[in-house]
Amino acid sequence: MKISEIGEFGLIERLKDVLRSGIIGDDTAPVQLGDSLLLLTCDVLLQDRHFKLNYPPSAIGWKAISVNVSDVVANGGMPFYALVSLVLPDMEVKYIEEVYFGIKRACEFYGCEVVGGNVSKGEKLCIDVFMIGKADRFVGRKGSKVGDGVFVSGTLGDSKAGLELLLMDKKSYEDFELRLIEKHLRPTARIDFVKHISKYATASMDISDGLSSDALKLAKASSVKLRLFSEKIPLSKELISFCKKHGKDPLEYALSGGEDYELLFTHPMERLNPFLSMTHIGFVEEGEGVYLDDRPLEATGFDHFRML
Amino acid sequence: MKISEIGEFGLIERLKDVLRSGIIGDDTAPVQLGDSLLLLTCDVLLQDRHFKLNYPPSAIGWKAISVNVSDVVANGGMPFYALVSLVLPDMEVKYIEEVYFGIKRACEFYGCEVVGGNVSKGEKLCIDVFMIGKADRFVGRKGSKVGDGVFVSGTLGDSKAGLELLLMDKKSYEDFELRLIEKHLRPTARIDFVKHISKYATASMDISDGLSSDALKLAKASSVKLRLFSEKIPLSKELISFCKKHGKDPLEYALSGGEDYELLFTHPMERLNPFLSMTHIGFVEEGEGVYLDDRPLEATGFDHFRML
Repeated sequence: MKISEIGEFGLIERLKDVLRSGIIGDDTAPVQLGDSLLLLTCDVLLQDRHFKLNYPPSAIGWKAISVNVSDVVANGGMPFYALVSLVLPDMEVKYIEEVYFGIKRACEFYGCEVVGGNVSKGEKLCIDVFMIGKADRFVGRKGSKVGDGVFVSGTLGDSKAGLELLLMDKKSYEDFELRLIEKHLRPTARIDFVKHISKYATASMDISDGLSSDALKLAKASSVKLRLFSEKIPLSKELISFCKKHGKDPLEYALSGGEDYELLFTHPMERLNPFLSMTHIGFVEEGEGVYLDDRPLEATGFDHFRML
Repeated sequence: MKISEIGEFGLIERLKDVLRSGIIGDDTAPVQLGDSLLLLTCDVLLQDRHFKLNYPPSAIGWKAISVNVSDVVANGGMPFYALVSLVLPDMEVKYIEEVYFGIKRACEFYGCEVVGGNVSKGEKLCIDVFMIGKADRFVGRKGSKVGDGVFVSGTLGDSKAGLELLLMDKKSYEDFELRLIEKHLRPTARIDFVKHISKYATASMDISDGLSSDALKLAKASSVKLRLFSEKIPLSKELISFCKKHGKDPLEYALSGGEDYELLFTHPMERLNPFLSMTHIGFVEEGEGVYLDDRPLEATGFDHFRML
């Protein structure tokens, strides 16, 4: 049996069985060491899969750090230390230095530090980042309570539109298009939400595979039903302009678009903080699955192995 | 300028400059978090570079953990938690499960645990392990004192001989040959040395690139000269049999052979522990570089990028 027959998530389930580990399944792994609750995570960017070599190298470095910070923040922690494991072909030193400038800038922005790493020779560039964060309380996918509101940070679907624009490889782009491309190339992890998540969220995760599939994961982990309202899903004016121009449905982008690195979380309605960029998009109910208005929502996210 | 013009270590120096980090350069990165001194490390095994797909998959998993434990142990720590970042093509699920059985067995042996990880699709199998250890005291490459003895654990050069035997792809192997192959495929990190290193070593590192190049790194970091005695370098009877059979010099294997994952460390002579598998191979002197008997020793280790 090949991996493509069971998919990425089927494979993960089997490997969890081999390890008999109970704590694999959230964005980070919480471990207690001495008096500290640490959040451990890793995420990789692969050439020709997550980026192309003609992308600005500093953006690749920025994103490699940001996607890991996003996991730590989603679970209520602050990022502290990172290791960078590089696999790379013989390429221009200048290019890799630029990647590292992006890594350094991102670390300065998020207040963390690269303390080590590893370099190996391979055929394609691969940037694997390991990150350690620290939290007062671990907030995972399990814990949503019936009656909680469902919230997301920022706006959704921009990254997918940005990627499509990048792949069009146009000679020139309009301003709103450049902003969408920027959201894809240089996502910013929601470090502004750490305190809020840590204090109030009953469950939380980052939206890396798309709202529809990530909401299903949260509903399943919490053993609840999520009812979302389509008219409440936050859409940027840039995404609306993009969809108008190309005859697309922005809601479709918001539901299925991955790599937004916004947060999806639940807590009582009265905890809504108007000073944060957060939107109430639904409620937690008894039951299972995710409903958009009155119809069940299918996962439209990405399974790398199923797409073969 | 290409990476091959400055080599792996030249590249690392440049990336350290970009990050302006002072603590990159040992086998692990020591960081203080709360009341714990943590040792962080990562090391990757790449298909067709560090292993071939026809190797026993459980051995690949065992080695991926062992090479990381070796780094932690070299710096005086005990391994605690690991993350496994897998990049893999569409392949047999059974194969990957076997890799994970090897990972699990190694973790049980060393007393650590895989708490999370990541799976991505790529063209070749790549197993990147990130490990956190804990130490009472960090023992790095810097710290050797003039007058200290120089010691190594186990025997050296076996892994290189084992690799050469593997690549001969013979129909059948003699017993001593199988033991050498085993040393290459399933190295055991010297977890039996943790207390000794932590209590007594003035400097320590693991021998992953070969004694000659690793001893030079230790001498440089400690700003001392190491004088080694060729007749004291520990050689296994298996390596001697191998060299007799193939007309090779076992000392050459011991000096240049990588991947032994034995330890190289220094401390006062009176700390020699006869109950540990350790050998006194030389002394720390004033000066710089490494001398074997009366001649300076050149680094004969491996630079992946210079070999292009």
